Amino acid sequence: MKIVIKNAWILTMNERMEQFPKGYMITDGEKILETGAMDSLPDDITFDECIDAKGAILLPGMVNTHTHIGMIPFRSLGDDYPDRLRRFLFPLENECMNERLAYTSAKYAIAEMQLAGVTTFFDMYYFEQQLAEAAEEMQSRGILAETVIDSVTVDVPKPMGGLQYAQTFMPKWQGKRRIQASVAPHAPYSNTIEVLQQADALSQTYDVPWMMHVSEMDFEMKKFRDEYNQTPIEFLEEIGVLSPRLVAAHCIHLSDHDIELLKKYDVKVAHCIGANTKSAKGVARVRDLLSAGIAVGLGTDGPSSGNTLDLFSQMRLFANFHKTYLQDRSAFPAEEIVKLATCGGAAVLGLEKQIGSIEAGKQADFILVETDSVNMYPIFDPYSALVYSANASNVRDVFIAGKQVVAGKKLVDFDEVQLRSELAEAMEQCQFKTKALNAMKE
Amino acid sequence: MKIVIKNAWILTMNERMEQFPKGYMITDGEKILETGAMDSLPDDITFDECIDAKGAILLPGMVNTHTHIGMIPFRSLGDDYPDRLRRFLFPLENECMNERLAYTSAKYAIAEMQLAGVTTFFDMYYFEQQLAEAAEEMQSRGILAETVIDSVTVDVPKPMGGLQYAQTFMPKWQGKRRIQASVAPHAPYSNTIEVLQQADALSQTYDVPWMMHVSEMDFEMKKFRDEYNQTPIEFLEEIGVLSPRLVAAHCIHLSDHDIELLKKYDVKVAHCIGANTKSAKGVARVRDLLSAGIAVGLGTDGPSSGNTLDLFSQMRLFANFHKTYLQDRSAFPAEEIVKLATCGGAAVLGLEKQIGSIEAGKQADFILVETDSVNMYPIFDPYSALVYSANASNVRDVFIAGKQVVAGKKLVDFDEVQLRSELAEAMEQCQFKTKALNAMKE
Repeated sequence: MKIVIKNAWILTMNERMEQFPKGYMITDGEKILETGAMDSLPDDITFDECIDAKGAILLPGMVNTHTHIGMIPFRSLGDDYPDRLRRFLFPLENECMNERLAYTSAKYAIAEMQLAGVTTFFDMYYFEQQLAEAAEEMQSRGILAETVIDSVTVDVPKPMGGLQYAQTFMPKWQGKRRIQASVAPHAPYSNTIEVLQQADALSQTYDVPWMMHVSEMDFEMKKFRDEYNQTPIEFLEEIGVLSPRLVAAHCIHLSDHDIELLKKYDVKVAHCIGANTKSAKGVARVRDLLSAGIAVGLGTDGPSSGNTLDLFSQMRLFANFHKTYLQDRSAFPAEEIVKLATCGGAAVLGLEKQIGSIEAGKQADFILVETDSVNMYPIFDPYSALVYSANASNVRDVFIAGKQVVAGKKLVDFDEVQLRSELAEAMEQCQFKTKALNAMKE
Repeated sequence: MKIVIKNAWILTMNERMEQFPKGYMITDGEKILETGAMDSLPDDITFDECIDAKGAILLPGMVNTHTHIGMIPFRSLGDDYPDRLRRFLFPLENECMNERLAYTSAKYAIAEMQLAGVTTFFDMYYFEQQLAEAAEEMQSRGILAETVIDSVTVDVPKPMGGLQYAQTFMPKWQGKRRIQASVAPHAPYSNTIEVLQQADALSQTYDVPWMMHVSEMDFEMKKFRDEYNQTPIEFLEEIGVLSPRLVAAHCIHLSDHDIELLKKYDVKVAHCIGANTKSAKGVARVRDLLSAGIAVGLGTDGPSSGNTLDLFSQMRLFANFHKTYLQDRSAFPAEEIVKLATCGGAAVLGLEKQIGSIEAGKQADFILVETDSVNMYPIFDPYSALVYSANASNVRDVFIAGKQVVAGKKLVDFDEVQLRSELAEAMEQCQFKTKALNAMKE
């Protein structure tokens, strides 16, 4: 199976940031075989399928490094309430979330991500076995990590039961091509030291990244200062769980020493600018993290925090926030932000050898972004166009491991309307909407 | 001509912020006749046309209070350069901008705004006679103000010649239904006191709002402090040009006294969060402005500053920036932000009696935003969905003064592809792209 993509504005995102304004790419149906300028494409090339990109921008599929795909039902619920997590989300989750709701939500969320050009994601939620099945079924690439927290949750009968769940869940997905199963302690403050150490050990045993919310909350910072005279990251070092496999989500509040530690242990950071600033928590020190040589990717957080699961809105927010915080309009030029959304995210997930750039031998995870919509003209700089002009609806075609999952803005093998009605049914079954609206009235 | 819109989620944006989750609206083809809940729609109603909104959100057309529609050719050019205004934009403008380029750019920009749900705008550029003709032709609502600046410009042969231009231009558009012509001194520092006073007088004579960039630049603040020991707004008060007709764009740097003065003279503020933060200039004190009772609207700034001309991206940036700056996630709930984009903008342009809400007697300027796209489900709060989930591509239908200008995401009377090729031709004629790319290389 040989597929040729012609007439694309190719952003390779390779080390030299090579681009081919009028380029071609050939895949073998799974991997990238070659890419180059149109005028170097041999006339006598044979292929099974040829796609004319018609000037669309071709770039690596985007990597959403932190999300909670089971939470679509919560979108637009209590967004602007100060205590919404404890007021709406946790009670409603306890009352309504179930296997079927998580699974239908996951399929819907993956559809949303694919339609927006996200080909790989790192998830943290409950019922991760079902969520991994959803991802497998929809042919996405992802790491799915079962949450561990010191309370009874919707899928385990005792506090921190997620660890046992993960022990069963993780071996099941060993050696799979696109899906990895992992574990995600909710936060350093909501688990015991032993659980954190066991989670780290699990990630080592199965050689997969694991994830945790770290240095996100004001009360978290205070708690560790008061109890240990440490930052959460200093605490995590002391208990021996910092490693290149740890993806620390958020990291909003970092000391210089924290940054040294993250670098020393090669910890990865999932930066969620949209969720962090919508909740008024602050702006992480991404310039300092990158200067220290730490891998950073972009994440949307869950649909009740970041609202949409696309990285276009994150890139725009990233640019404006970091320029303003650094008081420098030339900080983080668009090119650098597109890097974070693609190869940066790939490095965070430990997938830099498989994905994140358009290079021979890598998986054919790539997207085509239309350049003929009204907001995309003219284009002097394709990175600028992606960061400042494009929105998720400008994504036209999406391929994962060579398989086209979105064609002409439509899912290839699934029906958006049906995914939505399946989710709506699951929500109806547990009276999600009624209970949510009642909670809002209280 | 009686048009009925059925099954819409109507956000009236009236004083009581009434909404009809399943509502109808009737127009006479120009004005709104009535609106209400579907179950109160009389069975025997007669009409010429009936549109089933199929659950779309119906809200007043958005008002872009500050833009430069002639500048589409500059989009994505040198976005991240510290000195791009003087390095790229001014030289290229001087060399290339002409009547035809400004006119084709304006038509393209208006198309972009209409497709994104912006039905009214306040523009400040050159060749405003042609730009007003473009707006008239495309049936938009707008105020078009000729720039006055202390240099020779592309449409006037001597410094501050824009004032004379405006003297001829403004009377021509008196009494027009949707279009007003006005004058826009570039900034307090780039005009003489006499010119500023004459511009104010012109706006009084023709009873139209006028516009100026105010308190936007660091060097501007320093200049007025050094030369007059005043803020720009104190200076403008002293020379007697503050009035309810002045729309001050940006107002990033405001003292408490400035806010008192703006309130005292009922000056209006066009807030451009996207452009202000992309250029790392800062975040205006909008909470304080609104608390003082000053009218504030949202603006995109020109396509080379804000990049897109839609207000969805501005609303999202607005929410996240102001919540973070105020360190309060409950600050500016989504409802309040949608207000700024609609009735707030209408008040800034002095059009609050004509537009800005869905109320009997007002002009039928309204938009329908789809609720069946993947990013728009579920919706517990329609304002949240508009601010945090929607993007410009979710706008489905747009009406201005009862006339449908966008239907099913397509322009009704114009062809997007043709508008683009007309603009491309005008750019080609003056070798815009070649010169721009050369300037970038230097």
